[in-house]
Amino acid sequence: MLNHLRGYFPILDWGRSYDRNAFSNDMIAAVIVTIMLIPQSLAYALLAGLPPEAGIYASIAPIILYAIFGTSRALAVGPVAVVSLLTASAVGQVAEAGTAGYAVAALTLAFLSGAFLVLLGVLRLGFLANFLSHPVIAGFITASGILIAFSQLKHLLGVSAQGHTLPELLLSIFEHLDQVNIITVIIGASATAFLFWVRKGLKPTLRRLGASARLADVLTKAGPVAAVAVTTMSVWLFGLNDKGVKIVGDVPQSLPPLTMPGLSPDLVQQLLVPAILISIIGFVESVSVAQTLAAKKRQRIDPDQELIGLGAANLGAAFTGGYPVTGGFSRSVVNYDAGAETPAAGAFTAIGLAIAAVALTPLVYFLPNATLAATIVVAVLSLVDFSILRKTWEYSKADFAAVAATIVLTLTMGVEVGVAAGVGISILLHLYKTSRPHVAEIGLVPGTQHFRNIHRHSVETDPTVLSLRVDESLYFVNARFLEDLVQARVSEGCAIKNVILMFSAVNEVDFSALESLEAINQRLTELGIGLHLSEVKGPVMDRLKSTHFLHQLNGRVFLSQYDAWCAMVPPTDIDNAAE
Amino acid sequence: MLNHLRGYFPILDWGRSYDRNAFSNDMIAAVIVTIMLIPQSLAYALLAGLPPEAGIYASIAPIILYAIFGTSRALAVGPVAVVSLLTASAVGQVAEAGTAGYAVAALTLAFLSGAFLVLLGVLRLGFLANFLSHPVIAGFITASGILIAFSQLKHLLGVSAQGHTLPELLLSIFEHLDQVNIITVIIGASATAFLFWVRKGLKPTLRRLGASARLADVLTKAGPVAAVAVTTMSVWLFGLNDKGVKIVGDVPQSLPPLTMPGLSPDLVQQLLVPAILISIIGFVESVSVAQTLAAKKRQRIDPDQELIGLGAANLGAAFTGGYPVTGGFSRSVVNYDAGAETPAAGAFTAIGLAIAAVALTPLVYFLPNATLAATIVVAVLSLVDFSILRKTWEYSKADFAAVAATIVLTLTMGVEVGVAAGVGISILLHLYKTSRPHVAEIGLVPGTQHFRNIHRHSVETDPTVLSLRVDESLYFVNARFLEDLVQARVSEGCAIKNVILMFSAVNEVDFSALESLEAINQRLTELGIGLHLSEVKGPVMDRLKSTHFLHQLNGRVFLSQYDAWCAMVPPTDIDNAAE
Repeated sequence: MLNHLRGYFPILDWGRSYDRNAFSNDMIAAVIVTIMLIPQSLAYALLAGLPPEAGIYASIAPIILYAIFGTSRALAVGPVAVVSLLTASAVGQVAEAGTAGYAVAALTLAFLSGAFLVLLGVLRLGFLANFLSHPVIAGFITASGILIAFSQLKHLLGVSAQGHTLPELLLSIFEHLDQVNIITVIIGASATAFLFWVRKGLKPTLRRLGASARLADVLTKAGPVAAVAVTTMSVWLFGLNDKGVKIVGDVPQSLPPLTMPGLSPDLVQQLLVPAILISIIGFVESVSVAQTLAAKKRQRIDPDQELIGLGAANLGAAFTGGYPVTGGFSRSVVNYDAGAETPAAGAFTAIGLAIAAVALTPLVYFLPNATLAATIVVAVLSLVDFSILRKTWEYSKADFAAVAATIVLTLTMGVEVGVAAGVGISILLHLYKTSRPHVAEIGLVPGTQHFRNIHRHSVETDPTVLSLRVDESLYFVNARFLEDLVQARVSEGCAIKNVILMFSAVNEVDFSALESLEAINQRLTELGIGLHLSEVKGPVMDRLKSTHFLHQLNGRVFLSQYDAWCAMVPPTDIDNAAE
Repeated sequence: MLNHLRGYFPILDWGRSYDRNAFSNDMIAAVIVTIMLIPQSLAYALLAGLPPEAGIYASIAPIILYAIFGTSRALAVGPVAVVSLLTASAVGQVAEAGTAGYAVAALTLAFLSGAFLVLLGVLRLGFLANFLSHPVIAGFITASGILIAFSQLKHLLGVSAQGHTLPELLLSIFEHLDQVNIITVIIGASATAFLFWVRKGLKPTLRRLGASARLADVLTKAGPVAAVAVTTMSVWLFGLNDKGVKIVGDVPQSLPPLTMPGLSPDLVQQLLVPAILISIIGFVESVSVAQTLAAKKRQRIDPDQELIGLGAANLGAAFTGGYPVTGGFSRSVVNYDAGAETPAAGAFTAIGLAIAAVALTPLVYFLPNATLAATIVVAVLSLVDFSILRKTWEYSKADFAAVAATIVLTLTMGVEVGVAAGVGISILLHLYKTSRPHVAEIGLVPGTQHFRNIHRHSVETDPTVLSLRVDESLYFVNARFLEDLVQARVSEGCAIKNVILMFSAVNEVDFSALESLEAINQRLTELGIGLHLSEVKGPVMDRLKSTHFLHQLNGRVFLSQYDAWCAMVPPTDIDNAAE
């Protein structure tokens, strides 16, 4: 009973052994992460089209709920760039940014996404996430990074523009170029340049100046806070907001409010597909971060329980004024590097953010949107990595096609079309490959009992025996292929008396393929040729035994290809072959 | 050049050797088929919701075009039951039955279907039809047969009812029960009973009475004509059409007219998906008939050229007042049994039908619709075969699920949903199965060099070596599965020094799986465990060689599992194992 409960509440597991040492490590990590999260949360809310406080609210309840239900000890849950972009794209289709309806729709999206994740978790369907292949995810994240960077261009220029695809964004910015505010451009450009420098050049400089590794690290993480402080002060001192620089403005001083997601059938129907998409993308991203970090400490995470943890986090976001969240890469890595030992670090971060929400929000009144945009641009450009194109091109054109389609369609048709096309193309190309399987004619490798392709190895063969190794499971998509192939091969070689199909690579024979095998057997019987199988695996054999096929088969089923060979080729030939 | 032309015009092939003997055989077959086709063509037009002459027109130009472009020597092309039903369902959504718009939409459907088939043929994409598995097709045809039979019930009862699903049809008939015409019921019931008897009982009776097999056969085929003649005469003699019996009425006395399919973007958009569906179902049905008949005479058909042949036939139907056609099972079998030797038999049938269209159409004025409905019901009930449910249930629950879903959804949601669900479920279940592959721990079968599952065979193993045979191609859907599995197995057996992955059943390693292999290698390296591969196939090895993986691999790649075993297990153990 307790063990069962522990499965659903991992907190019961690590909570028992929690000690002072873990507490102090978790506290330090929480302070560092909190400092990093304040500007990041505001910025991602801006990206999602929501008021800045939504980003902070979305980091409080979800972190606590994940700490209770999640299995990763280092994962930090909250708003992330890609999910914020997906939220903007989905909610933008049902409401105008800045309206109350928009915020409610974002809550609905978080609710649906959370409910779907919990459902998948309870049904143990985490494997569904595997349909999103690594290359497709990599391509999608790269394209999203570009889209996000360009979506921030308007804040850096001070113009109003919109669009969910690259051409739309560029066109819209181009049309509004007359609105460009030069002071905003200066703030944006200098913040961006500063943050790039912090990311690339600050740490080595600090180390050269004699700072400890830990100090250099903390100061680097505080870079965005410095940019926020300096630009906010500048706006306040010089009254730049009166000169057209857009600022964050009033942010309510409050703990996360209790909110209700809108659940009208109409809204639910419009947001259901985007919610499923956000869930799966968020889950895949989160699990890969969690697995990477867990592997470093020989810990394990349970993907099905992760679904429940992330689902609970999203449900939490839906009822506390947030929007869809997931485990973020950068915040989790920072959390891990800062020494977080248990999910309690997350809970302490939540407390830090709650304090910020109550006490610090007046301080960001004069914070320019351009600074937030700069933090986003610098953060997401590290996501952009085109090397996946080169890597897949070199390895497999099918993988390359899926990645290239994902990138191009995400940029030009939007995130939803892009990722759906990536998954669809991956599956279709896989099915296409299996529809024309590789079939090798094989012979005996001299001196062994091993059989290989006659075109790749020098092997022994016999003109009366045709041995074919079928390199694919036999199922409806390729059932007829084998039928045609055996027919063609047999009509070529007139000396053939026996055909052996080596089934070492046949992992399944479905009903359509069974019918094809029956047809092959019947045709070969009519031609007076024996049909034999070898190396049929246990699960396939179990299934064939439940049918009449093995009785109809005019030949035999051999344990190994070598047994079949010995039964058909005269012993003198075998002696020769073995020499 | 000529050979190339012959590929696209198979007529150049058989036409050269056409002789008097073939001519007379073809003529006899044509007469028998023509007699059978006249009532059938009228009936299927009724089923498709079109005027009766459309059925005859659809049998003339398409037959001739198929004779020129098709590769099967016995296939008879024309309206068939399932495609007529699909036509009624598709066209019924854009126009009212009986209107001019309805007939034009049917032409458009034939045009789109023909164009799509030709396109697939020119692109050599015939393999796409394989996505429709045999069990799904069988389930779909059974469900369609039931739907068709029930759709004819209104004609047998003399009521007006409509609907494209079983519940709709039954409800609609029930609502109109007050319209039942008792004379129509008598005609319909007796025609149905007579035709059933002709099909089951006439031939044995005739043979007992001393008729030759050939004569008995021809008389049996003429059964529908007799039913048509008797009921038409009855209506005419007793003036039954004035007593509420619905009749065929005026049919224009004309050769097929030249018609233009409607090609407005709106219409094309609405009919495109149904046209693709009709093309693929028609193609699959046609090819399986053609292959069955070709195999009996050791002839071959070329599926890609069949696409062009059927496409040309449909384009012909579109411009000559027809509607979508395909190779029909019953008409092709009759053609074959009647001794047709070449596609010329089809051309002669077309001439026979053209004569009928000009000369015989006034004779069917008093033909009751109930008789046509009876011929349809008797014909389609032979399509209904639920044994596919039992067969797939016994063999594979996945195949059963696809068939059952196809049948249930076709009956309750209509033909398009049914067949799409069948294909979708087949693919998803296949992907699901490959997402959790069977992995066997293997050992040496004593006295051989062959390795099998330790749980199924008594084999030799060594505690320091973990040999796993992965029974599936490694690709994104199952990439992480192997990673988790190896991790779990290694943490169980602490004596393990070497892991050998036997790749005999791994037919592909995609980019995601390569990343997983790299991760496995890295983790095992950290644990001081060697990772080795064995029996990697040529195509997989070629691909792995293009990467750094083989350099990173901490162990070796062995040609055979036995080689790997010999390299890792001390020779004395091998001697013991071999005894």
